[in-house]
Amino acid sequence: MRTAIVATGSELISGLVQDSNSKFLAKNLNDLGFKIENICVCGDEKEKIKQTIEKAAKNADLIFITGGLGPTKDDQTKEAFAEAMNLELHYSEEIENRLKDIFCNYQSDMTSNNLSQAYFPTGAEIIENNRGTAPALKIEIDNKRFYLLPGVPSELKYLFKNKIKSQLVNLTKNSLLIKEFNFIGIGESTLAAEIEKLELNSALEISYQAGRAEVKLRLKIDSSKINDQNLKREIINEASKKIKSNFENHIYGEDGEDILSKVHKILISKNLSIATAESFTGGLIAERLTEKGGSSQYFWGSIVAYNKKIKENLLNIDSEFLKKYGVVSEECAIKMAENAAEIFKTDFVLASTGAAGPSAHNGKNAGTMYLALYYQGEIKTFKILKNYGRKMNRFYTSQIALLEIYKLIREREENNV
Amino acid sequence: MRTAIVATGSELISGLVQDSNSKFLAKNLNDLGFKIENICVCGDEKEKIKQTIEKAAKNADLIFITGGLGPTKDDQTKEAFAEAMNLELHYSEEIENRLKDIFCNYQSDMTSNNLSQAYFPTGAEIIENNRGTAPALKIEIDNKRFYLLPGVPSELKYLFKNKIKSQLVNLTKNSLLIKEFNFIGIGESTLAAEIEKLELNSALEISYQAGRAEVKLRLKIDSSKINDQNLKREIINEASKKIKSNFENHIYGEDGEDILSKVHKILISKNLSIATAESFTGGLIAERLTEKGGSSQYFWGSIVAYNKKIKENLLNIDSEFLKKYGVVSEECAIKMAENAAEIFKTDFVLASTGAAGPSAHNGKNAGTMYLALYYQGEIKTFKILKNYGRKMNRFYTSQIALLEIYKLIREREENNV
Repeated sequence: MRTAIVATGSELISGLVQDSNSKFLAKNLNDLGFKIENICVCGDEKEKIKQTIEKAAKNADLIFITGGLGPTKDDQTKEAFAEAMNLELHYSEEIENRLKDIFCNYQSDMTSNNLSQAYFPTGAEIIENNRGTAPALKIEIDNKRFYLLPGVPSELKYLFKNKIKSQLVNLTKNSLLIKEFNFIGIGESTLAAEIEKLELNSALEISYQAGRAEVKLRLKIDSSKINDQNLKREIINEASKKIKSNFENHIYGEDGEDILSKVHKILISKNLSIATAESFTGGLIAERLTEKGGSSQYFWGSIVAYNKKIKENLLNIDSEFLKKYGVVSEECAIKMAENAAEIFKTDFVLASTGAAGPSAHNGKNAGTMYLALYYQGEIKTFKILKNYGRKMNRFYTSQIALLEIYKLIREREENNV
Repeated sequence: MRTAIVATGSELISGLVQDSNSKFLAKNLNDLGFKIENICVCGDEKEKIKQTIEKAAKNADLIFITGGLGPTKDDQTKEAFAEAMNLELHYSEEIENRLKDIFCNYQSDMTSNNLSQAYFPTGAEIIENNRGTAPALKIEIDNKRFYLLPGVPSELKYLFKNKIKSQLVNLTKNSLLIKEFNFIGIGESTLAAEIEKLELNSALEISYQAGRAEVKLRLKIDSSKINDQNLKREIINEASKKIKSNFENHIYGEDGEDILSKVHKILISKNLSIATAESFTGGLIAERLTEKGGSSQYFWGSIVAYNKKIKENLLNIDSEFLKKYGVVSEECAIKMAENAAEIFKTDFVLASTGAAGPSAHNGKNAGTMYLALYYQGEIKTFKILKNYGRKMNRFYTSQIALLEIYKLIREREENNV
């Protein structure tokens, strides 16, 4: 069923407030299997609202209109809707009485402004709003269904979840089967090119969403293409298997949970401890490892040795060693991890050194970065050569660090250590 | 000038991602005096994009189109735009060469997908994108101006601020006189209540925008209310003076520059060094102080002593002392700063300890936080009692830390030290 969303409000059109209602509705409607044709935002002038509603009604059969149901002068959605659809506005004593009750409960005075909320378009069904004064409205005209919803996000969400969702379920048979994968350490375009080579079933819609130093891949089958539920599941499963076996080094999850949450949970459940020794990441890895409540169960501490003297004095690295290999080197990363492991005595130590940028550092180009991961006397190293700009270089490295800890613990688990 | 925004992307229309780009553009265009007619979001099917662009072009003279400039199959905005406007697509060797350079810098392989980014509509002016692979485009057709911008928010923001804004200033005569102040350490509603008491000129529109642990206040006179340029300036100046004298402890800037940039510049210009000793902030203050290129000029390092044992072993705090005062105490913060000053020998040391939350720590409620700021043998302390949730508690404290360093250096400057 073709669906459209109209959001009204001068605070939205002037960019002062983020239009979170449309995102909420789109997400929930999409999950129910509705296809959103468009989302249009306009100001609160009656003429603008009217035009926007007319356009939305042209291309959709289910239309959600949000905002402008309040008691003030700039609340004109009902009037605009009535004009667009050639309806009259009627005064409802039922709503008037309801309003009087609400104000009595609030122990507030009702103004004549508030009574404007008792007018509604002919034929509208009133949906009680238990969270505010403006009731929502449902109206059916020429096989199209309209919902007028208040703009206050908490009221809209409440009404949608508790009163409207159940009215929609019968409207769509178009249930979708969706599968998601999260990747770290591979770019969107490279991933897309590699996925293309897998020649997955053509009934699949594959979409990519680049996050912060990670990529999400979505597999989806639209019911309009294949109807058999078992066949759909089979296609999704086969594609999932291929993807997993081809990208096992990069996939860290299939459930929408971010890498930090995964690392947090696994460190706690395995009762492992960790510390960091950081140069160019400047404390970022420590900061991320302590982001979640309960992180004191696994995180001991960090030495951020930004200056060369601090690498010598706190991490006990010989100045001759630093001179020989340079601070931006695999050798330096290893030494940082080794020495920090002696200092912190944790199960894991992550050490980072590199040239974050924007300019070269210690004779190495910006974006030359090293990670060393200590575990039980052994050290794995990772050389990263990517230059996405200083901030992203640091964050990218922290993502790789989290991914590699997670993978190492998982491997250890598989080997029953 | 009538302005419209078109945002494309299946992740937007399906509600998976919040369309923050449109809000950013609307806000900035509104500030420049442009009137936004509408914001329309559509999926990434070529036909949908084409229709949405056609509609937007009907009612506006300045049109921003975002998203769909990337290298994958679902990036079809340029094709849709060319069809909507009856333009041809041409291949640009200039862009091809630029892409090759970028991938060479990234040390990544370029795929044939990426070369699709070298096609662009006839007559388009290329706006170099220093933050990603997709260049932005500017096209003038029949007295209408179109901008095609990449959908990645960081790239879009960068391009708008650095390349596009200056091209727009001449398009609007509706000049507004605006003054902004940035506050740290006072909440939006408290600030608003205090400002009301100042009884500022009624011709002023005062708006507030809550940022991340800071608040921006905007004074604005709309030209439709007062026309005389001198009178406007006078009203703004008078109000500014009142605000500054009443909130000198909280205002850190009037120029839109964030506190981190201010601290970065002043530390470099005064040739001062700094280190941190962090407990509950977990490296966040160090991470922020090293965010900017050139921070090695002032930042030496940090000891993140998350675990009590690390406070003892690395920060040399006696276990009896910790037992006596507790780790969440002013005394502990002072001792951390003192001892770290001996270790790092920097001009400044910032020490943090507290209960970040969600639960109480060391007998102190979540949101009980202490900062100690060492400078030339003296220590200033700050007790912060705010519970905004773990993540914001930490960030809020880092904001206070940056504000207090900045204020201390400014004071020192005023006293000609």
